[in-house]
Amino acid sequence: MKYVFSLCLLFVLSVAQAQNVLSPSGKLNLIFKLDDSGRPFYSVTFNTKTVVLESALGIKLKDKPALDANFEKISATTSTFNETWKPVLGEQSSVVNHYNELNVALINKGTKVKINIIFRVFDEGVAFRYDFPKQAELNYFIISDEGTQFNLTENNKVFWIPGDFDSNEYEYNETKISEIDNTKINMNNGIGVKSIPGRYMVQTPLMMKAPSGLYLNIFEAAVVNYPVMHLNTDVANNKFKAELVPNAIGDKAYLQTPCVSPWRTIMISNDARDIVSSKMILNLNEPSKLEDTSWIKPMKYVGIWWEMHVGKSTWDYAGSQNATNFADAPKASGKHGATTENTKRYIDFAAKNGFDGVLVEGWNVGWEDWNGNWKEEVFDFTTPYPDFDIAALSAYAKEKKVKMIMHHETSGSVGNYERHLDRAFNLMKKYEYPAVKSGYVGKIIPRGEFHDGQAMVNHFNFVVKRAADYKIMINSHESSRPTGFGRTYPNYIAAEAARGNEFNAWSVGNPPAHETILPFTRQLGGPMDYTPGIFEVKMSYYDKNKTEQVHTTLAKQLALYVTMYSPLQMAADLLENYEKYSDAFQFIKDVETDWDNSIYLEAEPGDYVTVARKTKGKETWFLGAITDENARKSEVKLDFLTAGKKYKATIYADAATAHWKNNPIAYQIKTMTVTSKSKLKLILAAGGGTAVSFEPIQ
Amino acid sequence: MKYVFSLCLLFVLSVAQAQNVLSPSGKLNLIFKLDDSGRPFYSVTFNTKTVVLESALGIKLKDKPALDANFEKISATTSTFNETWKPVLGEQSSVVNHYNELNVALINKGTKVKINIIFRVFDEGVAFRYDFPKQAELNYFIISDEGTQFNLTENNKVFWIPGDFDSNEYEYNETKISEIDNTKINMNNGIGVKSIPGRYMVQTPLMMKAPSGLYLNIFEAAVVNYPVMHLNTDVANNKFKAELVPNAIGDKAYLQTPCVSPWRTIMISNDARDIVSSKMILNLNEPSKLEDTSWIKPMKYVGIWWEMHVGKSTWDYAGSQNATNFADAPKASGKHGATTENTKRYIDFAAKNGFDGVLVEGWNVGWEDWNGNWKEEVFDFTTPYPDFDIAALSAYAKEKKVKMIMHHETSGSVGNYERHLDRAFNLMKKYEYPAVKSGYVGKIIPRGEFHDGQAMVNHFNFVVKRAADYKIMINSHESSRPTGFGRTYPNYIAAEAARGNEFNAWSVGNPPAHETILPFTRQLGGPMDYTPGIFEVKMSYYDKNKTEQVHTTLAKQLALYVTMYSPLQMAADLLENYEKYSDAFQFIKDVETDWDNSIYLEAEPGDYVTVARKTKGKETWFLGAITDENARKSEVKLDFLTAGKKYKATIYADAATAHWKNNPIAYQIKTMTVTSKSKLKLILAAGGGTAVSFEPIQ
Repeated sequence: MKYVFSLCLLFVLSVAQAQNVLSPSGKLNLIFKLDDSGRPFYSVTFNTKTVVLESALGIKLKDKPALDANFEKISATTSTFNETWKPVLGEQSSVVNHYNELNVALINKGTKVKINIIFRVFDEGVAFRYDFPKQAELNYFIISDEGTQFNLTENNKVFWIPGDFDSNEYEYNETKISEIDNTKINMNNGIGVKSIPGRYMVQTPLMMKAPSGLYLNIFEAAVVNYPVMHLNTDVANNKFKAELVPNAIGDKAYLQTPCVSPWRTIMISNDARDIVSSKMILNLNEPSKLEDTSWIKPMKYVGIWWEMHVGKSTWDYAGSQNATNFADAPKASGKHGATTENTKRYIDFAAKNGFDGVLVEGWNVGWEDWNGNWKEEVFDFTTPYPDFDIAALSAYAKEKKVKMIMHHETSGSVGNYERHLDRAFNLMKKYEYPAVKSGYVGKIIPRGEFHDGQAMVNHFNFVVKRAADYKIMINSHESSRPTGFGRTYPNYIAAEAARGNEFNAWSVGNPPAHETILPFTRQLGGPMDYTPGIFEVKMSYYDKNKTEQVHTTLAKQLALYVTMYSPLQMAADLLENYEKYSDAFQFIKDVETDWDNSIYLEAEPGDYVTVARKTKGKETWFLGAITDENARKSEVKLDFLTAGKKYKATIYADAATAHWKNNPIAYQIKTMTVTSKSKLKLILAAGGGTAVSFEPIQ
Repeated sequence: MKYVFSLCLLFVLSVAQAQNVLSPSGKLNLIFKLDDSGRPFYSVTFNTKTVVLESALGIKLKDKPALDANFEKISATTSTFNETWKPVLGEQSSVVNHYNELNVALINKGTKVKINIIFRVFDEGVAFRYDFPKQAELNYFIISDEGTQFNLTENNKVFWIPGDFDSNEYEYNETKISEIDNTKINMNNGIGVKSIPGRYMVQTPLMMKAPSGLYLNIFEAAVVNYPVMHLNTDVANNKFKAELVPNAIGDKAYLQTPCVSPWRTIMISNDARDIVSSKMILNLNEPSKLEDTSWIKPMKYVGIWWEMHVGKSTWDYAGSQNATNFADAPKASGKHGATTENTKRYIDFAAKNGFDGVLVEGWNVGWEDWNGNWKEEVFDFTTPYPDFDIAALSAYAKEKKVKMIMHHETSGSVGNYERHLDRAFNLMKKYEYPAVKSGYVGKIIPRGEFHDGQAMVNHFNFVVKRAADYKIMINSHESSRPTGFGRTYPNYIAAEAARGNEFNAWSVGNPPAHETILPFTRQLGGPMDYTPGIFEVKMSYYDKNKTEQVHTTLAKQLALYVTMYSPLQMAADLLENYEKYSDAFQFIKDVETDWDNSIYLEAEPGDYVTVARKTKGKETWFLGAITDENARKSEVKLDFLTAGKKYKATIYADAATAHWKNNPIAYQIKTMTVTSKSKLKLILAAGGGTAVSFEPIQ
């Protein structure tokens, strides 16, 4: 009898400690509670159905008592926030940031350390973070583990890549949670540096679909002064636990109060379009710290780059990837891509076809011996090869009204890059380069650090901030994946930070579904420099012995300019290929990169995405539709167009016989007049796509 | 019978593989041999007596076969080198570099990897290094251990400090080799960060005296792109083995052929003066890489520094060492040392008394919360406190013909310093600061690195090189100890890198013998910024409750300007103390810092040093004599003076009643006329000294 009574009392106490907050629409409900040992938990319901089971919260500290139990609630405060803000560049010219917040203040009964757990519930998902206020009981501390759990209810379908501390350039695996297993995937995938710490470790954003049809996405926002969060999977129980990327000596994060963790996010919707179009990640980041953003501009660009990937030219002057050649007596091989002459050809092409910029990789000394040896002093970022006349080319580009895009490959030698950063940026200012593509291929130096650790997160953010001093835009490749920091520093214009188009040139490549998954994963955190626009899809075009190819049709390459949002878009193929297919190239010339509005018409992760976007400040629209390895037919309403207006639609579609593997270049271009009342039939080949431009008829 | 035959054959082969090289004088003989397993060894004799027993040589590699056995000799080449060179600044205006060299080329019978071991035998010692030529068999490699042994013959007396990876600021222990034991020494010694990896680990330079009276010193030269070498002691057998300082993940050095190790050095002489005056370490470094050295000048300076050590003022503006005060609402405490007004006082004093420079510590924002928390972003090296008007002070100093000396405390946050280095140096150039004192108090960031690891060695050398771009001189504190790199970059004008005078202000301090050991250890690698000149020796002068004190007499503080060679010398005490003892202060005003010649008249490590130095380009001489805790009398011949000239000697000596503890400030000043035929009686109190200036009489 006594026993039963105790249980009842505990139940009452537990209820008393629980607290909830609803989304503005009321569909999502987040419940916070402390259990009887003072351990904090949260759970989430969607339309009253439990979607996230009770999941523990908490942080373990190095050399200090853990902050994961023995808590008492001091207060719980709810509030509502509703604001509309204007991104400098974006998919939309204004973004609504609407959520209800629950701020739970806790005190540890033993140490008297105070922490807050802040929950924000949006219509499309929940977010929470740990907040460590300034206090006598906690000043400096080291996080040794984050105990955050994500305990799901079903064995969902999941789009996952291994929880690699050094690379996010994997192709996605589409399995059930119970089938997540890093030992079962193909590791002969072209990735140079791999650091996978466990069999069931996966990365976020982690996109899922429940058997019930519900879509879920676990991610994080505002990763600032904190490592990237990967997830360890309990494959038997549909559970995930936060795994922070460690530093060289196994610590996770060094913090000082007051400070916060990144936001942990769970998007939940029964419509996949709510997730792909969500601005929740951006909303969870701080507003812009830059007062003057007039210098931040979208760019379409061409560049000396794909020709190296296809083997036509080389990054290095000597063409040998042989340090000795350059050190002893530099001999040009004749294959060097970044020559003055070749660069002029690209500048001329950009000027003629209305491109904003020209990227040149391989312009600077160091490429002879740059990769794979954990070498510290590789590039100095300021010394051009003897056949690259930076002064003359800058003047030439300026005369042609084309901007040069700088390239900084660090080869992972980050300390060396930081030592040269002011000098590198000063060179850019001298020659009026407005943007830089940075690269982080290779193992990180300081040695023992990983691409996704706190030190590297801080590095990537530091470079963005330092660049802002010079009014320089950053496009980082092989960096940790963005989590919305581009809202705070809008000069962080794009990043690669996922498996880009380049892998198609020299590896197993990216399967046709790849580009239908990225908008649900990588792109939630910020624009991706995917480098689309490859017309000569098959590498056998360059070398009969090659079997590598881009796993799309040509038409899908066009559609990617719309489906893969980025204010920085490359027309990646060789200039001669654009001249060869000049009618298809017209779409790349026409397509815009900054938008008033974006409407996701159809979306299913791993299957298809169809989106329409209105050009910022103009009446033109563009539509992109892509599919995976399956051919697809659909019909979309054009009711997004302004009512009463007529538009000339130019439709770049797969030919009837097109197929990503068997017949990828077959396309057809049609024009028709449409209005907001029209419907458009989309017929996509296997691995295909459709790109449409809508020009208002005066 | 068969067995005996084999042994004989092996013996013959062994002899065939041996090779020797003599010092120019013939006293020292270095013998190299490969044993029957192809393992390399060296041994050394002095006057035909074995001083270093057969000691193994070799390197272990990570993930590659070791380079320590199975070698075959390809060739052994001997050569002689004899050159005289002129240091920019120094104890002598010209240095003789005379040695015989043996270059042994080896090939590994298994891997075919080739290495050379290069031996140089000087009159006062031997040196050797590993040389890894460029070859197909070895490009990039990682050193996991260096097997170099130093197997001695006797249980010598040794002056040692623990083999701490992070600090060289220990007081010396004077024991037998067999008594080396890090668990037995006082660790309550004022050192903030300690990383002692083993009970018997000691640092170099390791000064020894054999029972036979022979002096030995193990050290290294030209530590460039390599970690510092400490030694692990086999206390039972008088043996030492090289222990390289590891990086964050336990690796020792990352190298690419062609490359070399630092020189391992063993000085050997039966006269201690040969060691203290040796230029072998400098000789083993590369000649100056700087063509124009006209901007590298010696400096005597005063500064806002000791007043913080004695508690009269603070480094930080708020006077609280409390970050909150400054971040929330900066309130001056009134105790801040680096104010515009106080700095002007120092500039006026410097101008009046003929000092070249004024150092100001605590001028820049960050000191509120700078130490002990492994904090990354502490200082930006460019933001002055609101009460330090850098522009006005620079103009004022220029008007007064005084140079400002910059201060960069990094608090060990080295990545952060490198990120700001160009900006920091640009600020210095803007305000015409010719030199900077840098500091590395605290645990290193990148975290996991040690002060003495390869990455930090590279950092210290990098800063020196980067500073040369700006024509800035470097004086690094808490750095790894110099090994002669100042020959190669003469703008590396001084370093602390040992237990400096400051420890006397707030710790157990430096025992009276300390300054008699440093010339045999730390100072072999380059000038030390010891900051002598403390007249108010006892801290009870400032606070009756304090018992700390400088462990010397006032007269010994004067003598240190001569015995502790440095082209950068601080008059470290408060200005008012110099005004109070203005007659003694006259010596500091008069003493020079750059020399034509230096003659060590008497020297015994741990007991006494007496040296006379001739001013560069002038006929004036200065003599310094110091003793340890024992009073000392001696008589020195002044036959170094130019024959036939008369000099006015001003003698700053301990008073008869002086004693470092009981009566430290008691001094007497006498003048007399002397010639090269005179003798000078030196009467030194316990912990005392004598300083003498010799002015030629016209």
